[in-house]
Amino acid sequence: MHVHDHNRLARIGMPEAVLCDSKTVDQLEQIVGDLTKAGNPVLFTRMSTPLHGSLPPTAQSLLDHDPVSQTATMHGRLAPRSTGHVAVVAAGTSDQQVAAEVVATLAFLGIATDLIVDVGVAGLWRLENRLPDIHTATIVIAVAGMDAALVSVLGGLVRTPLIAVPTSVGYGVAKGGSTALHSALASCAQGITVVNIDNGFGAASAAVRILDAIERGAGPSPESP
Amino acid sequence: MHVHDHNRLARIGMPEAVLCDSKTVDQLEQIVGDLTKAGNPVLFTRMSTPLHGSLPPTAQSLLDHDPVSQTATMHGRLAPRSTGHVAVVAAGTSDQQVAAEVVATLAFLGIATDLIVDVGVAGLWRLENRLPDIHTATIVIAVAGMDAALVSVLGGLVRTPLIAVPTSVGYGVAKGGSTALHSALASCAQGITVVNIDNGFGAASAAVRILDAIERGAGPSPESP
Amino acid sequence: MHVHDHNRLARIGMPEAVLCDSKTVDQLEQIVGDLTKAGNPVLFTRMSTPLHGSLPPTAQSLLDHDPVSQTATMHGRLAPRSTGHVAVVAAGTSDQQVAAEVVATLAFLGIATDLIVDVGVAGLWRLENRLPDIHTATIVIAVAGMDAALVSVLGGLVRTPLIAVPTSVGYGVAKGGSTALHSALASCAQGITVVNIDNGFGAASAAVRILDAIERGAGPSPESP
Amino acid sequence: MHVHDHNRLARIGMPEAVLCDSKTVDQLEQIVGDLTKAGNPVLFTRMSTPLHGSLPPTAQSLLDHDPVSQTATMHGRLAPRSTGHVAVVAAGTSDQQVAAEVVATLAFLGIATDLIVDVGVAGLWRLENRLPDIHTATIVIAVAGMDAALVSVLGGLVRTPLIAVPTSVGYGVAKGGSTALHSALASCAQGITVVNIDNGFGAASAAVRILDAIERGAGPSPESP
Amino acid sequence: MHVHDHNRLARIGMPEAVLCDSKTVDQLEQIVGDLTKAGNPVLFTRMSTPLHGSLPPTAQSLLDHDPVSQTATMHGRLAPRSTGHVAVVAAGTSDQQVAAEVVATLAFLGIATDLIVDVGVAGLWRLENRLPDIHTATIVIAVAGMDAALVSVLGGLVRTPLIAVPTSVGYGVAKGGSTALHSALASCAQGITVVNIDNGFGAASAAVRILDAIERGAGPSPESP
Amino acid sequence: MHVHDHNRLARIGMPEAVLCDSKTVDQLEQIVGDLTKAGNPVLFTRMSTPLHGSLPPTAQSLLDHDPVSQTATMHGRLAPRSTGHVAVVAAGTSDQQVAAEVVATLAFLGIATDLIVDVGVAGLWRLENRLPDIHTATIVIAVAGMDAALVSVLGGLVRTPLIAVPTSVGYGVAKGGSTALHSALASCAQGITVVNIDNGFGAASAAVRILDAIERGAGPSPESP
Amino acid sequence: MHVHDHNRLARIGMPEAVLCDSKTVDQLEQIVGDLTKAGNPVLFTRMSTPLHGSLPPTAQSLLDHDPVSQTATMHGRLAPRSTGHVAVVAAGTSDQQVAAEVVATLAFLGIATDLIVDVGVAGLWRLENRLPDIHTATIVIAVAGMDAALVSVLGGLVRTPLIAVPTSVGYGVAKGGSTALHSALASCAQGITVVNIDNGFGAASAAVRILDAIERGAGPSPESP
Amino acid sequence: MHVHDHNRLARIGMPEAVLCDSKTVDQLEQIVGDLTKAGNPVLFTRMSTPLHGSLPPTAQSLLDHDPVSQTATMHGRLAPRSTGHVAVVAAGTSDQQVAAEVVATLAFLGIATDLIVDVGVAGLWRLENRLPDIHTATIVIAVAGMDAALVSVLGGLVRTPLIAVPTSVGYGVAKGGSTALHSALASCAQGITVVNIDNGFGAASAAVRILDAIERGAGPSPESP
Repeated sequence: MHVHDHNRLARIGMPEAVLCDSKTVDQLEQIVGDLTKAGNPVLFTRMSTPLHGSLPPTAQSLLDHDPVSQTATMHGRLAPRSTGHVAVVAAGTSDQQVAAEVVATLAFLGIATDLIVDVGVAGLWRLENRLPDIHTATIVIAVAGMDAALVSVLGGLVRTPLIAVPTSVGYGVAKGGSTALHSALASCAQGITVVNIDNGFGAASAAVRILDAIERGAGPSPESP
Repeated sequence: MHVHDHNRLARIGMPEAVLCDSKTVDQLEQIVGDLTKAGNPVLFTRMSTPLHGSLPPTAQSLLDHDPVSQTATMHGRLAPRSTGHVAVVAAGTSDQQVAAEVVATLAFLGIATDLIVDVGVAGLWRLENRLPDIHTATIVIAVAGMDAALVSVLGGLVRTPLIAVPTSVGYGVAKGGSTALHSALASCAQGITVVNIDNGFGAASAAVRILDAIERGAGPSPESP
Repeated sequence: MHVHDHNRLARIGMPEAVLCDSKTVDQLEQIVGDLTKAGNPVLFTRMSTPLHGSLPPTAQSLLDHDPVSQTATMHGRLAPRSTGHVAVVAAGTSDQQVAAEVVATLAFLGIATDLIVDVGVAGLWRLENRLPDIHTATIVIAVAGMDAALVSVLGGLVRTPLIAVPTSVGYGVAKGGSTALHSALASCAQGITVVNIDNGFGAASAAVRILDAIERGAGPSPESP
Repeated sequence: MHVHDHNRLARIGMPEAVLCDSKTVDQLEQIVGDLTKAGNPVLFTRMSTPLHGSLPPTAQSLLDHDPVSQTATMHGRLAPRSTGHVAVVAAGTSDQQVAAEVVATLAFLGIATDLIVDVGVAGLWRLENRLPDIHTATIVIAVAGMDAALVSVLGGLVRTPLIAVPTSVGYGVAKGGSTALHSALASCAQGITVVNIDNGFGAASAAVRILDAIERGAGPSPESP
Repeated sequence: MHVHDHNRLARIGMPEAVLCDSKTVDQLEQIVGDLTKAGNPVLFTRMSTPLHGSLPPTAQSLLDHDPVSQTATMHGRLAPRSTGHVAVVAAGTSDQQVAAEVVATLAFLGIATDLIVDVGVAGLWRLENRLPDIHTATIVIAVAGMDAALVSVLGGLVRTPLIAVPTSVGYGVAKGGSTALHSALASCAQGITVVNIDNGFGAASAAVRILDAIERGAGPSPESP
Repeated sequence: MHVHDHNRLARIGMPEAVLCDSKTVDQLEQIVGDLTKAGNPVLFTRMSTPLHGSLPPTAQSLLDHDPVSQTATMHGRLAPRSTGHVAVVAAGTSDQQVAAEVVATLAFLGIATDLIVDVGVAGLWRLENRLPDIHTATIVIAVAGMDAALVSVLGGLVRTPLIAVPTSVGYGVAKGGSTALHSALASCAQGITVVNIDNGFGAASAAVRILDAIERGAGPSPESP
Repeated sequence: MHVHDHNRLARIGMPEAVLCDSKTVDQLEQIVGDLTKAGNPVLFTRMSTPLHGSLPPTAQSLLDHDPVSQTATMHGRLAPRSTGHVAVVAAGTSDQQVAAEVVATLAFLGIATDLIVDVGVAGLWRLENRLPDIHTATIVIAVAGMDAALVSVLGGLVRTPLIAVPTSVGYGVAKGGSTALHSALASCAQGITVVNIDNGFGAASAAVRILDAIERGAGPSPESP
Repeated sequence: MHVHDHNRLARIGMPEAVLCDSKTVDQLEQIVGDLTKAGNPVLFTRMSTPLHGSLPPTAQSLLDHDPVSQTATMHGRLAPRSTGHVAVVAAGTSDQQVAAEVVATLAFLGIATDLIVDVGVAGLWRLENRLPDIHTATIVIAVAGMDAALVSVLGGLVRTPLIAVPTSVGYGVAKGGSTALHSALASCAQGITVVNIDNGFGAASAAVRILDAIERGAGPSPESP
């Protein structure tokens, strides 16, 4: 039997989440069954529409599936929080699935987001038009594939925490996302941090760690149970 | 003439910093001269002891050089801040130079640090002994080379923002740091972010972005000038 | 005609085994036919359910196929041995197919196993709960993808021979398993050895070499025929 | 004896050039001797100051060496041309050696340049300040290491031919220049072309091909002799 | 809503273009709808025949799709220009799809092309037969996979601007195109520039930048609006 | 202060060891001083002769340095054990430094070894001549660079536990050892395990884990303190 | 129209050959049509059974297709030659498709072959059993994936020209064939040459160059027409 | 003691050879001493001038060292053979050291060579001028770095056996030689074989295998003793 991490919320401030894409249908059905008994809100990521469709009807009926972000939730979401909001800034249309995973994860965790797309630096005026909105955010998450130049440009324009999510969009040297990843890591802008390629869920989780720190103020974190 | 970014402090909350290791002695002498006129505190990173020694005496006398972290400062430091402190947790003795760059950068920026070393996960009890100290920090920066397993273990134990600095320590597959980098990016612990290999300065800068956000609370960042 | 290695059992202590996934259906049918005549127990690895299903009925009826481990046996198994048992420790649900290959291979060879799953280090308490069981094993095989941090943590906790099987589970930098492989090889824990990515069969075979050595005691191995 | 390509100027519009860094001192001395007899202007690239210093005095006296660009010329330069000028735009101080190779090569070929440095996109206002100058150029060559984000931003701002020279400046993932190279190749800005890492000479040569085409107008190139 | 870059034509001399292969059918339908309202000529690249076929009939009817180049146009093309023509030289039959993308992009932009195929250097006489035609072109674009040796050979034979498009054709070390890319970048011929693997559209766009410069003559480019 | 892992011997059966090559002279002097107080036997690996020579005389006098294996010991060695012996089989003269590290580590741990060199498979008769000796060993450690073909050949000839140490010897594709590493991991011989490139210490440590298991027999390992 | 290289036979001793796997069905149909007119023997490689089946019936009827080697011939074969024969030695069953391409290519060229399979070095006796046959060959072609250790072992046993064909068989680090390729290139056996991964056709062509040289004896090759 | 392979000449037609660059001075001194007793001709490769100079005078006096090819011989050379000669064709001056290793190895083995340099394809006429000489050779060895385009062009022009030696000459993507290696392996010219980067000795050895086959004619090779 799958051993779930029921006290993760208390320990690190984040509830249970299940990464679906390397699991079999049988394994997912088993996990849904186990978690149903626990009754807590759960997030499933990388649950493609075909994978969702191949689950048995009982399991499907327990899940609230979103085809754009390829996520699903069970037992609702966490209560909304008023700690600020996150701007999710995506370079192009092709990056939107990853951006949607960021938004869906934050929504599940009760955090407001502002999704800003099509602001790639090849048309800098588009980004400049949206800067006033971006400046109102508490945290900025930049989602970009190809050369990920958006990350560096944003890094020089905003002073908030800035988390980059490289995406696997592209062909040739951009294929698979390592160019975007390396570009974000090598950024000449100061103080940018990076998560794994296409890891929208991870960037959202990192934002939650920061928002929790803002809520607590400058004191130490409560000790883990 | 070098064009300095004098309003960077106002724009993104961080003062001027100069990366030395790809500059010539002539270029550095020129930069020191230019920045002397401005009179603001400046941080120099990756200034090795031989490089420092090869500068002309006038330039050397303007710099406060630290051989362990290979940093130097000019015109003092920023005023101390009371926004919390950062735990800098290093896996092994060999990671200490990078850890020292994190500490020196944060000290320059007026932020208190707690340096905790030799807590590699091959001796898990050493890390467990230091957990109470780590839990008092506002932010944790994990510095680790080789397999960087410390990053994942910390990620499951603390709820604060956690920034990983992979180091280039090691031989064979660990040489150059890509194993540590990839291991940190692929961590199964939630919400960890990563900076470039050996980029202690970058991790410290990212911590400053978060501490600024904590100081501002949940509201928007002040607009850039 | 395929030239089988009938005396491998006498020479290196392991019976015939057939890796299926780069063979055609025609080749496999031929091999099954040839080996039927020999009449010895045979293990087939990486025989996917579709591949098994595409074999002619006669060949299928000779095979005992297990869809979870994607292995099949013919002419039964080796007699059970009482030399100790192997703990197969898997980080996550997604690693279970590889872990199942380890278990199926050892079962075929007559060796008892204890399968322990969902003990990734992001929730260290789960691993600590299972340590008493792990300590009873003669050999530990750690199966882990992504950052493979489980390998290093186990390496510092157990004194038995410890064999790591990196898995290809994951996306972005983890895709294909090279991060897990490099992380296991670069582990700071002492005396860990590693096999190829997803090579559950190889790890089981290495365990057999060790168990044979334990049975023989400290003397030399019997000379090959 | 080295076989020189004396009619290269007639054939492809570019005179003899000698890449020094993989040649021995003996080979260079021999080449200088051979080319002296021919009497045409020659450019030597990647001739470091120590390499220049290790040549015999006779050879040294024939060369006009520039330590910044690590180039040398012999028998003067080509006559100045009035076909337009090239803006050489470098992201940072560390990229200046490569930028200087571009400028020295173009100067040797009789072409005017405007060198614009320290306009990395982390301080976008610095680039914007220099845009009026950049817009006056016939061709723009962008020299950038690290994430090479300058290339994409320039690509969206200028309509002239734009050639990117990635540099090997940087550490971690930026080391050696492959991140800058891949970032420039994957740029989302339209119609950017790229040369090998640190290949300032190549970018200058590509600019000459374009300037020759402008001189000829839209007709066909004269056939090679 | 997708934010289109309507003034790109004025700014950098190129009209709107849409890269299709990383977009969903829903996203493309939306984009076609948005761009229909604008009424300007648009080019779609990497629109495979199945992708085109999966669009709703209304969207399909607005597009003029070419299965060989996998491009489509909407609202016609730009007016023909008389600035010269581009020779598109492809090494082998297998490179023709990428060569067709170059030709289709240039045709859309009103520029004449001469497509010359099957001139790989393993049969040098085939290339020599076509040299008179190649010499009449204003610009040469070389399309080549595998070892891309055609690029270097052409580089020594023509004096026009020469842009290389490496292709992903091939198996073993040639698979994916990195050998062709690196070979083109490392070419010993002077002044060759390179675009991303399979990026026919990019090479055509770079040619347009050069043709625009030829039209303007040696003066500065008109300032962006 | 360096936190030493004094109970490692009790916990995982191996005493303190210090990897020197990424530590500074100051750090090593400090470590030697700390460990002197503890008084237990310590092994230093990768302590080159120049590094040893740069330590202060007091530190040097405490160390017993071996220039061939680049190891040093302090406070003697562990008592000899009678659990069997290890054959250390090296393909070529160039692999001998790594082989010497294996031998020195095992000698420090009280274990007998038989060093067999110059048995590369390009002269198979040399290996065959030494097989009788190799068959008397309890464990075989194969040390090989370049193509590491020795590993596979040995794997088919011996039935003992077999640990491969790829070495970084070689040039071209062999440079750095990744070819040897991958070759050993991909070996078609069954049940071979592998350690990091040049990691003689790690292979010796893995052998100790196995020898301990042989001493204990088939029962469980004693629980860690 | 495809420009065929009709005089290749005269020029380099090899007739026309067509690599199919990167061509479209339309392109192949066109090529078959063109070559039918010429009437010379033609070899098609990498023509998979589905690809062959998707050609129009007229084209299919002109081709003699072999599903094992995935080759087809048109207009028969070259006349048999009596210059010696080639031993094609394959390590495992999985390498047989590539070995079959070698055999089919040589058969097309009129050269006798001896196919020897299942002689991987993990069971060295199998190779030794076949050595007498191998020693009768004029040239040996070794086909091997995974660690390609067969190549080195053969290199030390035979004195004939020895050409290695690495195959893409395998998983983990062996996937795609780069381990086999690098292992063959790094072989410690003297005088082995290597072709691209899976390039059975290339190895056969190289053998023809050698057999032609043997036929001519030690004199110069006839000049190309 | 080093175990020398004294019957290698009888077994595979090549005498003893010693690769020096990964051996210590002590090891080389020992080897020279051992081989002196045997009295047969020996070739030492990659013996740099400093390495030669650091040997003790007695060892130096036994060696005939050539600084250009970095080889040395002891006890003379093999008797000259009249089996034909080898054309060694090098693209550029920078490839000459590797070309010299080819020539020195063949000279040691008694085989005549014709060294042809500076025939890179960027100036195709230089190669064409030398083709008559090249056509007189029995075997052609092409030595080329960077894009190695010379290999493919030669492959289409000559019908002799053609062996490519990629060199590590170059910078950026050419650095280390993998671009040249991959380019040679991916060559579209038929029947080219390749050796490891910079492996002039290996290419010469492969030529010897072919020349031996020519001497023997089409019959089988004599069995190894």
